[in-house]
Order: sequence, then structure tokens, then C-alpha cells
Amino acid sequence: MFKKILIANRGEIALRIIRTCREMGIKSVAVYSTADADSLHVRFADEAVCIGPAPSVDSYLKIPNIIAAAEITNADAIHPGYGFLSENAKFSKICEEHDIKFIGASAEMIEQMGDKATAKATMKAAGVPTIPGSEGILDSYDEAETLAVEMGFPVMLKATAGGGGRGMRAVWKKEDLLRAWESARQEAAAAFGNDGMYMEKLIEEPRHIEIQVVGDSFGKACHLSERDCSVQRRHQKLTEETPSPFMTDQLREDMGEAAVKAAEYIKYEGAGTVEFLVDKHRNFYFMEMNTRIQVEHPITEQVIDYDLIREQILVAAGVPISGKNYLPKLHSIECRINAEDPYNDFRPSPGRITTLHAPGGHGVRLDTHVYSGYMIPPNYDSMIAKLITTAQTREEAINKMKRALDEFVIEGIKTTIPFHRQLMDDPNYIAGNYTTKFMEDFEMAPIEE
Amino acid sequence: MFKKILIANRGEIALRIIRTCREMGIKSVAVYSTADADSLHVRFADEAVCIGPAPSVDSYLKIPNIIAAAEITNADAIHPGYGFLSENAKFSKICEEHDIKFIGASAEMIEQMGDKATAKATMKAAGVPTIPGSEGILDSYDEAETLAVEMGFPVMLKATAGGGGRGMRAVWKKEDLLRAWESARQEAAAAFGNDGMYMEKLIEEPRHIEIQVVGDSFGKACHLSERDCSVQRRHQKLTEETPSPFMTDQLREDMGEAAVKAAEYIKYEGAGTVEFLVDKHRNFYFMEMNTRIQVEHPITEQVIDYDLIREQILVAAGVPISGKNYLPKLHSIECRINAEDPYNDFRPSPGRITTLHAPGGHGVRLDTHVYSGYMIPPNYDSMIAKLITTAQTREEAINKMKRALDEFVIEGIKTTIPFHRQLMDDPNYIAGNYTTKFMEDFEMAPIEE
Repeated sequence: MFKKILIANRGEIALRIIRTCREMGIKSVAVYSTADADSLHVRFADEAVCIGPAPSVDSYLKIPNIIAAAEITNADAIHPGYGFLSENAKFSKICEEHDIKFIGASAEMIEQMGDKATAKATMKAAGVPTIPGSEGILDSYDEAETLAVEMGFPVMLKATAGGGGRGMRAVWKKEDLLRAWESARQEAAAAFGNDGMYMEKLIEEPRHIEIQVVGDSFGKACHLSERDCSVQRRHQKLTEETPSPFMTDQLREDMGEAAVKAAEYIKYEGAGTVEFLVDKHRNFYFMEMNTRIQVEHPITEQVIDYDLIREQILVAAGVPISGKNYLPKLHSIECRINAEDPYNDFRPSPGRITTLHAPGGHGVRLDTHVYSGYMIPPNYDSMIAKLITTAQTREEAINKMKRALDEFVIEGIKTTIPFHRQLMDDPNYIAGNYTTKFMEDFEMAPIEE
Repeated sequence: MFKKILIANRGEIALRIIRTCREMGIKSVAVYSTADADSLHVRFADEAVCIGPAPSVDSYLKIPNIIAAAEITNADAIHPGYGFLSENAKFSKICEEHDIKFIGASAEMIEQMGDKATAKATMKAAGVPTIPGSEGILDSYDEAETLAVEMGFPVMLKATAGGGGRGMRAVWKKEDLLRAWESARQEAAAAFGNDGMYMEKLIEEPRHIEIQVVGDSFGKACHLSERDCSVQRRHQKLTEETPSPFMTDQLREDMGEAAVKAAEYIKYEGAGTVEFLVDKHRNFYFMEMNTRIQVEHPITEQVIDYDLIREQILVAAGVPISGKNYLPKLHSIECRINAEDPYNDFRPSPGRITTLHAPGGHGVRLDTHVYSGYMIPPNYDSMIAKLITTAQTREEAINKMKRALDEFVIEGIKTTIPFHRQLMDDPNYIAGNYTTKFMEDFEMAPIEE
């Protein structure tokens, strides 16, 4: 087993990893930027090394400084957390070259899954469903029509140079295809000077549902069921839950099997997540694979009584997994508490936390690196806490979240607590009736005087 | 279901009950003494009523004030928590007379279990093992010898007027009985002017292991496995765990069956605890039954994913239980954090908490009514928090407790955190090798400079 792990990250995930290191009797090394000197991950690690000034490129992304810190402190492994260097193939390779175990995917796997086109092709070869569509640019209208009929409507026409919805057309029946083709090409030509079009199957009422997997160094993988992360704002996840209210036993089995197939096909080692889009007919399509721990991992831990960071460390140390899959025994919800003002377009709200009172009691977990008096630096991601509730049923987990949010006091800055509190009362959310489009229609209720 | 529950208690248990009320959509009413005006249970309840000054006899024990508060606020039930009026037969009866549901045992049951001699006789009649011994005072040495031979050695001779160990003799073999009998009688006569003696079986290396039961209003009961509360100081529990490291599947089945038999015999309604002494041969003997929720109930909740306060409320509202027993799926430990100085004979240390930082993360639960800036009044019990860790194994739960205690910062007062931290490193504790005598040999290590 490793004797000392350096955590190449900050914030709650650095603290999260340090906690498991302590519980496993492994020494931990924190690295920090000058802006993070007062952070809890620095305080709770066994050792801490300053690796540079606030801009991440000069500290948390500065590979030589991190490797130097590991060598100085004699760390035999590096845990990259999420973000920063966690999916950086070069970093993974450099760690390996320095004989420091990278607790994450190999450079080869990161490269394989990091490029969307390569990842999609790999998954297709593995037999995992991917979003059907044209192979690159369509040469003619006839080719578009043939493909659309073959895939079945609805389809989505997309300008290859597109962005911001321009040059994009959803087409629901064959009769409308020609007109859409022509207007989209004209729009694309006008906007981008490029009328190249490609086509994908339109995913109706899409949900973002991902499967947690763990693979060991012997080529075996298992899945730990799903997380529903459909409640997103501009592709940023706001809250997650497991099980998904949209899930069926059959779908879980099918998606789990596909995810395990994906992991075993690439001989994936470590904890990873296979993200799928699921349409209203419960067809699922591979979106991408994250070769790292994810922000929302705690809800999985809660429903299967399993420490995922511990598992990452064990697998990295060469311990084999049992290979059995894990099914949710409880229901768990995570709310990401961000230092943002939900009444002002979720604008970041850094500053000093003057008062913090944490919720507690039965079924409540809080992962946070902040405290009363903590100054939130403006340099980083705005997430300051993850509040997780767990109960026998979804209804109970929601009710527990409501009361935990009511108890959670953070003063001095704006946070997304009011947003989550309103969400937990939203009839569509309560009914489990939400897609990735949910936030498009969501509005904060006026503040009560 | 109840619409509004008044909580006739204070501190962490009042908050604990309010939390479940909120989660169940039931309104809550806090009552408080003037000394507790700033307590969290007052802040988080839907309504709060001051019921008098600090001395408990003028507030938390003052039945007319509590009944008046319930009537004013239109509460249809009262939850008494633990301590105070929770096992007061008169209070239970008065609630009933005022048509307010008492969420606890009936007056009759409280009386039946409140008197030790009556409780023992009832349990004997129910077929639950009790500590064998003489029926009252022994008339002669011959009677003592006959009984001792019948019960088997070792036995304990006890002066009926005894106390503080005087007039008490442990006797391990028949040859020593006469001498012990005579010296104990002389000692008792000299100390108390009363040489009456009785005899009990001596419980070797006793452990305090209790079984949680729940009974419904239809006469059905189930058990929720055990809690080992052997680590005690002057009969005050300091830390508890479940499962007991001393437990076997067979013993759990036997003790569970005995506890259910006890509960069903008296048609027990609500959550209760049957406390047993278990000797080194794994014989178990009824000690007493607590007809209320207990301080240490969370560890049971953690290992069976079950909210006991919710269950109390449901049963009180007439909902039947399923009747199945619950076995521990995980391991959970609770440390009672008291405002006491473990380096100074656990002397109470009331005062203002200047800084509080709560531990968090995977497998950590904190139940507390205090916060940064809170003034601990000198009038009440010194317990200020319950720290609970839960994991797959006992070893992991201990390691988790160590790191949670290391993270727990309370400044401004002395607490028992250093005691628990040392306990978690104690080789005998780690080995699960402890009895109710454990604390007699425990000494705090000197503070490291």
C-alpha cells in the first residue's frame, strides 16, 4: 500500500481525499496556491507545500512544481481529484516516468477517451450505443434524406461550423427535411461562411444519466449503478440523485452492462464514469467517459455504503475488485452549494463567509472546505459545499434536503441555497419529471419580505 | 397523523425530534427555559414557548406549564425526548387526560418498568433471564450456602443497607463463603447498624449490552439488534457501538428474542430499550427497561437505515409495524462530546464556545444543538454533541472516528474530545476487549507540548 499520497487539487475534493487517506493510515501531502493558504485541505493534510501563486496555470496546473513537491515530500502516489490535471495525459505519463503512481487513468486511456471522435469510435467498436448520425459532413441532400429515413425521425441538422443554435434545425418528419436543409445551409453560410452540414438523431426529452464504474488492473470492471444529473444550467450540473426517477430495473441492467462493456473493452483501471443521454423512449446513447472521480460521487457512496476514494486507492495499489455490481439500497440527493447569486443570473459571489452553520443529524452529509471566517478567493470554481441527504425513499430524501437547506446558514456571501430550496418544492422536480432542458423554464420566485 | 408536536425537552434531542417532524411535514413546538433562549431547538422549531426559568423544576419538569404550552399552541402530541419527563408516569397520564398523545409509554408501563423490583418480577414472569439471587434478606448462613451452591459460584454477598462497596463480598468458592459472610455482616453492622445480607450471582467481566425494541399498538414488537454501552464512567455511558464486538449471531438471536418477549409480554408501545448485563460466558441477564428514546439511538439508525424518531411518531399515531427484526448491516460508533475536562476528573466546563468547526464527509454524522458563539448554560447535562461514524467494518469506523475527532474544533471550553481520541487508540478498546470496569484503569496520557 502507498505510504504517502500527494493530492494535486484544492477545495472540498482535496479534503475529501485527505479524509480517506487518514482513515486508511496513509500520510497525505497538500499542495496549495498562495490564495489557498487558509484552506482546510492545507490544515488537515500531514504536510503542505505551496506550489505557486493563484492563477491555476502557475500552481495547480504547473506540473513541474507538483512533481517537485511529490519528490521533496517523498510521496509515492498522486491523487489528482477532478478538474485541473485529473484528465491530463501528459501529467499521468510524467508521474509514471517519475515512478510516482498516478491514481487515475493511464495516459493512453485519457487520450482515448479525451478526444470525442476517438471515444465515440471506440465505444461503437465495443458495442456501446452511440448517437447515430452521419460520418462527418453530408455531401448532398439525397445523402441526408437517405440517412434520415434510415435512422428514423426526428433528426437534428447541424452546421459543422455552428454555434449558439445557428445553422441548427430539428426535423420531425420527412416532408420538412428539404426546407430545413436549405434554410440551415443558408443560415450557416451567412453566419460562418461555411455551409457544411452533418446530421444526428435527435434525442427527445434527453436526460443525462451516468453509470459509475470501477475497473482493476486485471481487466475486470463492475458498475455501481447510475446518477441522474439532468438538472443542469449551461451544462453545469446543479443537483444529482440516485436512483434516477426515470430508471427501470431493465434499463439499469442494460446501461450497467454497456458501461462495464465499455470499461472492460479499454481495460479501464480506476474509478470512471460513463455518461449517457437517455431519450424519452429509454434509448440510451454514449456521450463521454470521465476518467476520474466526479463531483457527484458521494450520492453513489451513500446508497451502496462504499468509499469510492478508498476504492480508487486500492485499485491503484493493485488490489483486485470482486467484480460484482452494486445496486442502490437507498435514495440520495446532492445539492451543489455555489457562491453564486441565484437571483442575479447565478453571478459569482466571492468574499468572506462571516457565519457558517452546518446542517446535521440523520441522513445528512456535508462535504466542504469552507468555514466561518473563510475568505473565498475569486480565482476558482464557485462550488463551496456539497450537501447530501440520504433516506429510504426519494420523497424522504427530498424532505430531508429541505430541512437541511433550511438549517444551512452561510452569511457574508450569496449562495445557491435558495435555488435548491425552491427546486425541492418544484412540482416537476418532485414528480421526477425533468430533462436537461429543465432549467430553461426555471425562474426564481421573488424573495419574500 | 399528528399535525403539531410539542417537544418537551432541550438540547440535541429536541433538535433531533424537530428535524424528523420537519421531514414528516409535522409542525413542531419548542419549549425552553430562559437559559435556553439562544438554543438551536428554539430557532428551528415552527413555534417556541418559554416555560420558565433555568432550574428544571421550574421549566422542563413543570408539567402545568408544558401542558399549557401544548394547549395554547394547539399541539396534538408531546414528545418527551429522554430524561426530564420522558419516564414520568404522572406526565404520561396527564397528557392522556388532556387528550394530547404522549409519544412514549403509558403511565402503567412506565410504572411497571420504573420500579426495579417490579420490573425484575415482571421479566421473570415473562421468561426473560434475570440476575439470580436470594428473594430478599437471607435468614441464615445455611440458607446462603444452599442458595450459592444452587446458583453456582462466584456469588456476591451484599448488605441490604450497603453502599460504596461496604458490606459487599465477591466469593469464588464454597470454602470461602463462611468467612466472607461473617466479615461482610460485621462490616455492615458497623457501617450501617444493619447486618441484613442478600446474595446475587456475580456477573463476571460484565458488559452492558442493550437491545432496541419497537412495539406497536397491536401488541406486536420487533428488535433492532444491540448496542454495546460498556464504556462507562460512574454509570455514565461515554461511547457506544453496534454491533457489539462481543456479539455472536446466536447471542444476538437469543437476546433479541428475549427483548421481544419482554416487550410483547407487557404489550409495549413505542421505542424502548431492554438493558442486559452479559457475563464472560455470554450469559445475559435483564437489568432494566428504558421506556423512551435513548441518547445512543443514532448508531442503531445508522446500521439499519431507519429513523427511530419517525418510528416513534408512526407507532404513536397507530401505524402497525411490520414485525420483522433488523440486523446490523454496517458498524457504527457514537462518542458523546461533553463540556467536561478529561484531564481534570471530567469536571464540567460550561461557558462560551468561541469557535466551532464540525467534522464532515463520508460516514460522519453530528447531532448537536451548539454552535460558534453559543453559551453553554451551567444548569444542564454537560453533553453538547454526539459524533457518530459508520463504516463497513469496526476497524474502519474507529479510523473514521479518529479522523473526525481530529477535525472537530471546539474552542472556549474544555471537552471530552481528547478522551475519545485517546480511547480510539487504546489497544484494549481496539481489540473490543472491554467491560463496564474499563474506565477504572483508564488514565489520560499527559498532554503533548
